[in-house]
Amino acid sequence: MEDGKMKTEVDLEAMGQRASAAKYELQGLSADTKNHVLRAVARQLLDDTEMILRENGKDIRKAEENGMHPGMVDRLRLTEERIQAMAEGLCQIAGLEDPVGEVLDAFERPNGLSIRKVRVPLGVIGIIYESRPNVTADAFGLCFKAGNAVILKGGSDALKSNAAVTASIRRALCGCRVSGDAIQLIESADREVAARFMKLNRYVDVLIPRGGAGLIRSVVENSTIPVIETGTGNCHIYVDEYADLDKALPIILNAKTQRIGVCNACESLVIHEAVKESFLPRLAEALREANVEMRGDEQVCALVGDAVAATQEDYGKEYLDYILSVKVVSGLEEAVAHINRYNTKHSEAIITENKENAQRFFKEVDAACVYVNASTRFTDGFEFGFGAEIGISTQKLHARGPMGLKELTSYKYTIEGTGQVR
Amino acid sequence: MEDGKMKTEVDLEAMGQRASAAKYELQGLSADTKNHVLRAVARQLLDDTEMILRENGKDIRKAEENGMHPGMVDRLRLTEERIQAMAEGLCQIAGLEDPVGEVLDAFERPNGLSIRKVRVPLGVIGIIYESRPNVTADAFGLCFKAGNAVILKGGSDALKSNAAVTASIRRALCGCRVSGDAIQLIESADREVAARFMKLNRYVDVLIPRGGAGLIRSVVENSTIPVIETGTGNCHIYVDEYADLDKALPIILNAKTQRIGVCNACESLVIHEAVKESFLPRLAEALREANVEMRGDEQVCALVGDAVAATQEDYGKEYLDYILSVKVVSGLEEAVAHINRYNTKHSEAIITENKENAQRFFKEVDAACVYVNASTRFTDGFEFGFGAEIGISTQKLHARGPMGLKELTSYKYTIEGTGQVR
Repeated sequence: MEDGKMKTEVDLEAMGQRASAAKYELQGLSADTKNHVLRAVARQLLDDTEMILRENGKDIRKAEENGMHPGMVDRLRLTEERIQAMAEGLCQIAGLEDPVGEVLDAFERPNGLSIRKVRVPLGVIGIIYESRPNVTADAFGLCFKAGNAVILKGGSDALKSNAAVTASIRRALCGCRVSGDAIQLIESADREVAARFMKLNRYVDVLIPRGGAGLIRSVVENSTIPVIETGTGNCHIYVDEYADLDKALPIILNAKTQRIGVCNACESLVIHEAVKESFLPRLAEALREANVEMRGDEQVCALVGDAVAATQEDYGKEYLDYILSVKVVSGLEEAVAHINRYNTKHSEAIITENKENAQRFFKEVDAACVYVNASTRFTDGFEFGFGAEIGISTQKLHARGPMGLKELTSYKYTIEGTGQVR
Repeated sequence: MEDGKMKTEVDLEAMGQRASAAKYELQGLSADTKNHVLRAVARQLLDDTEMILRENGKDIRKAEENGMHPGMVDRLRLTEERIQAMAEGLCQIAGLEDPVGEVLDAFERPNGLSIRKVRVPLGVIGIIYESRPNVTADAFGLCFKAGNAVILKGGSDALKSNAAVTASIRRALCGCRVSGDAIQLIESADREVAARFMKLNRYVDVLIPRGGAGLIRSVVENSTIPVIETGTGNCHIYVDEYADLDKALPIILNAKTQRIGVCNACESLVIHEAVKESFLPRLAEALREANVEMRGDEQVCALVGDAVAATQEDYGKEYLDYILSVKVVSGLEEAVAHINRYNTKHSEAIITENKENAQRFFKEVDAACVYVNASTRFTDGFEFGFGAEIGISTQKLHARGPMGLKELTSYKYTIEGTGQVR
């Protein structure tokens, strides 16, 4: 692995078996041991900085030769500071409470059976991700702390970087006498290998794709492993007829422009017709200053001279860019119907001083996180106080919203008897 | 639908849209309204007994003409008593606590954001099941009480029976001014329709297969909807060297013979070599009386004259029959390794008076329910005190073990602010 050579064949079956063996070891580790290991891994990454940067340099050179967009090259690039941030992230995870072993419920039945519901690791977690090599360390850290073995499949552009980070982590694990198979990397850029990985349900308990909509769709369509969908966010802000417009303006600007490339950024504005005249020109001016293009319906274009006419496609789009689609509605019901039709179940906000409308919005909008009078940008593990997260789940099964350590666990029932039969 | 005619084309897209519309209505219903509706549905089923039995009779005649096994015909058959049991089941569900709206967590962040985690319905649940027509009413009842719309696809043998039950339920719903689309039945025996149903992830939030291993495998392999695997149970009992053999015998007999065709029946016995001589002949005699065939390894066959030699395949088999595979091991570690290799993560038991071994078994065996000194037959929603269940989940994502009302829900975060931005 260390020499970074491209392997032509990947024995996924053997990797699955090794991960299975490792998961039984990991589920028995104490919190203290796991925290000690995480700190050792952090130190090892710092010690291996030179090696990691050298391997990352090879990926960078290849990407530049292939004419990769500079923004993408930047996502791929590791620096001393970024490796330091990876190490710090692992130490932060070491500081979080261990979720494993928590007793979620305990009760006795009339026949004397004593039943406990206990939190246990999921087992083996598969993660398929795109270019950022820091995900290798972050994902390992969270999965490991929750007692899980992990099999990673990174982007083809980051092959050598991911292999270097993985080798460093495995070295630290072995130094702590913990199975190096707690982390395994699929070192292949082959799509056929990715497709086979998605069918490894015999060994892998859950598969988490981290990346763009295309990657997530491909995993959902092809995986036989249970999937947790993460990340895509076509987030709306609805300015109600009872909105405090002085709150609405900074919230929209923050949610749209504070960081445009993230899943909790606002992509679409819905506005009540009663406030369109007082608010849209004012908003348009502020957005113009921030270089944000507005794409609106007829009513919007009539009020905002430089607004572009929006198509149906615009309303379904996660721009991740300085663009905002805008739709005028006649009331809360139409706003909710529009949002439920076009959203990706991520984060949605209403700006209103009307408590009844706020409650209706909370209840009727189908999304992981529903806001009243706050920016959608708060959908984040740290902002919620949960600590580091593996992603934002946009599905309803198992976990919804920020996925931290608890969301990387399952539970089992233990039942103590004294000879009971039915 | 009432005339029971076979439809040649099923517009799944339209069914998905109708279910989506219904789910928004259902999520707003109060517990009182839902309970009232469930009792009205129960009355309607009783009122429609004659119609349901007539339609069921057509399925029965066709099955008999096709030479269906009498045991299967019995599963298909409805009687006045069985319809009464369906109605009683719905009334029982009406008596269970409504899980929707429960506040699972509530906290305030330093920036003043007030965050609540609230239990909400999943949305639209798909269920694919085999012959028993009573599942139609049971599954509807649980999904409805948890605020979900349901799309059902029953077995081809029960087409007319399921259509009759569904028509009766829809009649009651309309009488209560609730959307009949809270339940929709895919009236087709076409496999291609089933395959298309499994790809309806745009509208269906979770798909639950109820049936044999073949059905479940097909759903896992083909569905793009998140699946909850249920049901298959290759359950083991391990007789430890520290077992109280007077407890072991009745537990094994109960778990093996009380009801052979169920997923929590014992299929395989693992026994410590230290107790094989004192226990196996005694067990063999009791099993012989109960007409249970033993299939064992060499050590078993040496002690039990009429035991059949077991193959590797035997250890992986869910017999659902009067057969028990038996394996002798040298200790707890080998027992656990054998169980984790062959089990289906359903229910596993150890018979021991040694507390340390009991705790190790609890911790190391990977299954939804792990027992000490009790029959595996207790893995059941009613036996756990949860009430009716939609199935026993054997996967680790979302729900594990008996799935009742709570397991048919998700959650959302609601966040109240006063203008907060990042």
